[in-house]
Amino acid sequence: MRKMRKVILSEKEMPTQWYNIQADMPNPMQPPLHPVTRQPVGPDDLAPLFPMELIMQEVSQERYIDIPEEVQDIYKIWRPSPLIRAINFEKALDAPVKIYYKNESVSPAGSHKPNTAVPQAYYNYKEGVKKLTTETGAGQWGSALAFACGFFGIELQVFMVKVSFDQKPYRKSMMNTWNANVVASPSNLTQAGKKILSEHPDSPGSLGIAISEAIEAAVSDPGTKYSLGSVLNHVLLHQTIIGQEALKQFEIAEDYPDVVIGCFGGGSNFAGISFPFVRENLTNGKSARIVAVEPKSCPKLTRGKFTYDFGDTVGMTPLIPMFTLGHNFMPPKIHAGGLRYHGAGPIVSQLLKDKLIEASAVPQKECFEAGVKFARSEGIIPAPETTHAIAQVIREAEQAKREGKSKTILFNLSGHGLVDMAAYDQYFAGGLEDFSISQEEIEASVRSLEVVPA
Amino acid sequence: MRKMRKVILSEKEMPTQWYNIQADMPNPMQPPLHPVTRQPVGPDDLAPLFPMELIMQEVSQERYIDIPEEVQDIYKIWRPSPLIRAINFEKALDAPVKIYYKNESVSPAGSHKPNTAVPQAYYNYKEGVKKLTTETGAGQWGSALAFACGFFGIELQVFMVKVSFDQKPYRKSMMNTWNANVVASPSNLTQAGKKILSEHPDSPGSLGIAISEAIEAAVSDPGTKYSLGSVLNHVLLHQTIIGQEALKQFEIAEDYPDVVIGCFGGGSNFAGISFPFVRENLTNGKSARIVAVEPKSCPKLTRGKFTYDFGDTVGMTPLIPMFTLGHNFMPPKIHAGGLRYHGAGPIVSQLLKDKLIEASAVPQKECFEAGVKFARSEGIIPAPETTHAIAQVIREAEQAKREGKSKTILFNLSGHGLVDMAAYDQYFAGGLEDFSISQEEIEASVRSLEVVPA
Repeated sequence: MRKMRKVILSEKEMPTQWYNIQADMPNPMQPPLHPVTRQPVGPDDLAPLFPMELIMQEVSQERYIDIPEEVQDIYKIWRPSPLIRAINFEKALDAPVKIYYKNESVSPAGSHKPNTAVPQAYYNYKEGVKKLTTETGAGQWGSALAFACGFFGIELQVFMVKVSFDQKPYRKSMMNTWNANVVASPSNLTQAGKKILSEHPDSPGSLGIAISEAIEAAVSDPGTKYSLGSVLNHVLLHQTIIGQEALKQFEIAEDYPDVVIGCFGGGSNFAGISFPFVRENLTNGKSARIVAVEPKSCPKLTRGKFTYDFGDTVGMTPLIPMFTLGHNFMPPKIHAGGLRYHGAGPIVSQLLKDKLIEASAVPQKECFEAGVKFARSEGIIPAPETTHAIAQVIREAEQAKREGKSKTILFNLSGHGLVDMAAYDQYFAGGLEDFSISQEEIEASVRSLEVVPA
Repeated sequence: MRKMRKVILSEKEMPTQWYNIQADMPNPMQPPLHPVTRQPVGPDDLAPLFPMELIMQEVSQERYIDIPEEVQDIYKIWRPSPLIRAINFEKALDAPVKIYYKNESVSPAGSHKPNTAVPQAYYNYKEGVKKLTTETGAGQWGSALAFACGFFGIELQVFMVKVSFDQKPYRKSMMNTWNANVVASPSNLTQAGKKILSEHPDSPGSLGIAISEAIEAAVSDPGTKYSLGSVLNHVLLHQTIIGQEALKQFEIAEDYPDVVIGCFGGGSNFAGISFPFVRENLTNGKSARIVAVEPKSCPKLTRGKFTYDFGDTVGMTPLIPMFTLGHNFMPPKIHAGGLRYHGAGPIVSQLLKDKLIEASAVPQKECFEAGVKFARSEGIIPAPETTHAIAQVIREAEQAKREGKSKTILFNLSGHGLVDMAAYDQYFAGGLEDFSISQEEIEASVRSLEVVPA
């Protein structure tokens, strides 16, 4: 019999609710703390940044949250996304594994990011917000939010990490086409940016810095709010449609994964594919391994410290309980700009602490090697971020081969790499580095963190 | 009731046959002629270029041709493609129209081109061919064939029109990632290229020149064959899966288009979306208008001459009966590189001659304006080629508004523009030209064509 190649759901089968893992976590998270008072943050503290609906989602304990019809209508431009069996990649690996992937690269912005960009733009629109600010690393998030703001007539200012701004000019063009304004961060538009530029004129920027700038730009203008593409609970919530769809699709395929893999920056695509499977582990007797894959050069999950830290470099966000390398940690200039972030979202951090998920770290060259192998067998050129998940898939396949045990693997193809081709050029030219981070560096960076009463 | 956003077909509903319009054409085409003997070309004449299976498809009179299972398995990575209702674009146009589009941009290469690249690579593989040559304009076809050759271990040499090679560096990177070799055309790899370079060292190239180079490279190496991305009957045949799917999807949507629109270079995406609807007109009592949209700067359908002409610039291909601007016509450097071709495929030419289809020509700036309007309402950034179809959609909508008549429009979103962002940058910077072609220029170019006994 011929192998199934993929499972597509119809528009009517698209989930109409997001899954909120907070309802099922065995240990609650510690609360975020106000950056000045060090008291637990309340909804009012966040009101200058986010619309109330998103703040309520941030702390909600409801297991399922309805997806507004207006958001569903936009999702349906590309969702449900296909679950694809990587038949040719399996052949190329020659291991006793079945490999499936959710293809989130079919969104108009080319990644999973619109899953949260659209509801964020929508809730802001509903609250009358006319302008948003945000940061972006490689540009996937900025592109997605520019795309989303277009539907609701919201103006957008994007602070794009300078190294990516220079490496990926097409990302800026995409955002412009969707009507957003983009500057390289650190920029002269904010005090935070000016201060960093005065001290480090050649700063390549980082997500932490760009977040500081975007927050400052939002709070200093009453009609403007801020939007974040990862880390926070409501962002991860919106991404769970990926895993919710995948569960339905596995049911149709009459299969189930032994391991679920996502690359890891702040947690959004990883959470999206995996949280519904964590729920199945917690509440439904399943036992899939859940693996978050980070760059070896930005190893907060595998080598960071679990403590309170700021989400940004300057220290404007609430203090968040998380695995972190310290908010001053400057990740090396790897091409996976979306993974160049010092900390892990609080839910993911708690799940890792509770050993409900695993973490793995892979070096840059291994990732691109995996990406090229995937492109040449399966046909899709993955984003540099996504190659981290694929590198882990190959490790899992090799382990299965060594142990002679068969295994079913699911990973999230979080985005395509068509706007990141300069990274592939550099890989083929032998110009990619495997940056290593010394234990001293991490300890120095983490030591600087204040101990905050929990 | 909420409007349907899109119709997705399951893997099982994907058509398993291509539609061959040759079976239904009221007037047969005149035969292609050998470039030297001027006698009708037979299968043996084409054998140095193509595998026999494709040659048989080229002349087949069978109405339906089975899609090999190996090809179906690869199609299923991204097919069936969605039929999407452009709800937000409709709102933006504020006209009494319903607009649907087939989203072919979801293929891993970002366009419709893999629909024929995959079967062409497959049939060559089945015949033991180890290497292919081809030309590419904007790079969509070269990318698609590189993608397809990867599945069958076929080596690929791509001659890429120089102006696009320079404008779109990421396309080269994509082809490299899929393991193809790419040179700018005219190149020093062929006699044809050398000759043109010696006369015009700054030649921007054209599809006609690149075809000459690719054919020469194929026929001068016995183990190598040639592959073409448009114009020929078998290429158009493979694209009909687009329209075949669309018909099934309209049935589910309980709707039917009044007008079917595709942009036009050599004919492949236009034929793909429209031929099954032409069949419905011819055999099933339907009466959809079928509109091919070409650039005003390369107006073979609207201002060219119907005559025998070569498919390439040097004169290596058979003489083909077609609407043409003359094989020496050098199209201006518009960004829609895939539409910079002097002639129209023979089937499309015959259909136009028989008034079974219409043609329209739009200038470059109107196209980009349409593309940006679509991106800002519907979210997908279209390829420069595709913007031609969208410009025509807007014209149709405006006409409907003027006349107060409602209309249902279908167009083919043949590809996304994420690898063509430099073109959008230039548009926003006000740097795009609307090239005009004088009647004298066309007449001089067409006059040079020999009159060949039919």
